[in-house]
Amino acid sequence: MEAVSENGSDRKRKALLAATEVFLDKGYDCASMDDVAAKGAVSKPTVYKYFSNKERLFAEIVRATTCEMDDLVCLVAESMAGKTSIESGLSVLARRFISALMQPRILRLRRLLITNAERFPDIGRSWYEQGFERVLATLAMSFQGFADRRVLNLNDPLLAANHFVGMLLWVPMNKAMFTGDYSSSREELELFAVAAVRAFLAGYGPTSRSIARSTQA
Amino acid sequence: MEAVSENGSDRKRKALLAATEVFLDKGYDCASMDDVAAKGAVSKPTVYKYFSNKERLFAEIVRATTCEMDDLVCLVAESMAGKTSIESGLSVLARRFISALMQPRILRLRRLLITNAERFPDIGRSWYEQGFERVLATLAMSFQGFADRRVLNLNDPLLAANHFVGMLLWVPMNKAMFTGDYSSSREELELFAVAAVRAFLAGYGPTSRSIARSTQA
Repeated sequence: MEAVSENGSDRKRKALLAATEVFLDKGYDCASMDDVAAKGAVSKPTVYKYFSNKERLFAEIVRATTCEMDDLVCLVAESMAGKTSIESGLSVLARRFISALMQPRILRLRRLLITNAERFPDIGRSWYEQGFERVLATLAMSFQGFADRRVLNLNDPLLAANHFVGMLLWVPMNKAMFTGDYSSSREELELFAVAAVRAFLAGYGPTSRSIARSTQA
Repeated sequence: MEAVSENGSDRKRKALLAATEVFLDKGYDCASMDDVAAKGAVSKPTVYKYFSNKERLFAEIVRATTCEMDDLVCLVAESMAGKTSIESGLSVLARRFISALMQPRILRLRRLLITNAERFPDIGRSWYEQGFERVLATLAMSFQGFADRRVLNLNDPLLAANHFVGMLLWVPMNKAMFTGDYSSSREELELFAVAAVRAFLAGYGPTSRSIARSTQA
């Protein structure tokens, strides 16, 4: 019984991975359930059994990626919580976050979502709420922790998270979206990370007085 | 001779406006030269005479919009140059900029570009360089003017412009792109503008010492 259920879950995951590749390669309109079955080496009835139709499959692809992004951000936020230096904590966060978001697979999923947002507004809204907004909320919680320890000065942690990510990603993300060029080097992304951390700390970091206080505490 | 040339230029502008509407409504694939001729009340040979093919027409639509955006930003930057208060200057800039960029027509053009970026990378790159990057460069020039008068503290005006726009637009722009909902109210946009100006001035504004210096100068 267990083995069967494991096989079923394996098959479903395999079909979902295959479907992701097919949708990213061909776009929603040109992707077919046949392509997905062929790519995943599963039968077409298996694909239909798990996902019932193409729109549902698209929704599942998006859901799986929102979970993946959230797991990543939670992990990074947890690892930040142990850092005593806000600058090194934010630098780790900025670097991992920009590397994750600028992966070609994530960029192409983003394009797929934007392309189809007017047609499938519920799927786009689910990415916006469960992916985009949830990531900001996780960051905000982590920033609040630093504010509690007086190493960040902020009264609206969600706004601060929004500003941090906006400074980090506005240019590289738009470049990738408009040019279709996903080849940003690690060095380029590092520059965006360093600059965003520096500007964020200038705006939201402790003043020298509050640094003195928190060091003495 | 003059009248003929004026009529020609009118017809071209009319065809371009019609084409923009058709492309935004139907997307690149479904838009046809017939649709453009019908919408613009011009003949199909007229459309071909001015734009030769659909890809060329798409490029012209994008070019016209980049010029429009740049004109707007130049105008705003010029109007800022006369302001003595950096805060009121930036507030005007932020408000006009976010209102302009969040217009449904501009948002839909943005989506059209992102949808077709892998297929027509040259058109996407032209928007990125002549629209997106040029706007940042114009802002940077304006910021440099404030830095020269010591009301902004920055050594990289382009980076500062990137951070300003990123803080201003990251959330509302992504919301519009992912959900297809273009109905942000003036009040919502105003909140983003106020928050971005405040955070920008916290990071890049004058320290109290340099305010004192510039007031005494």
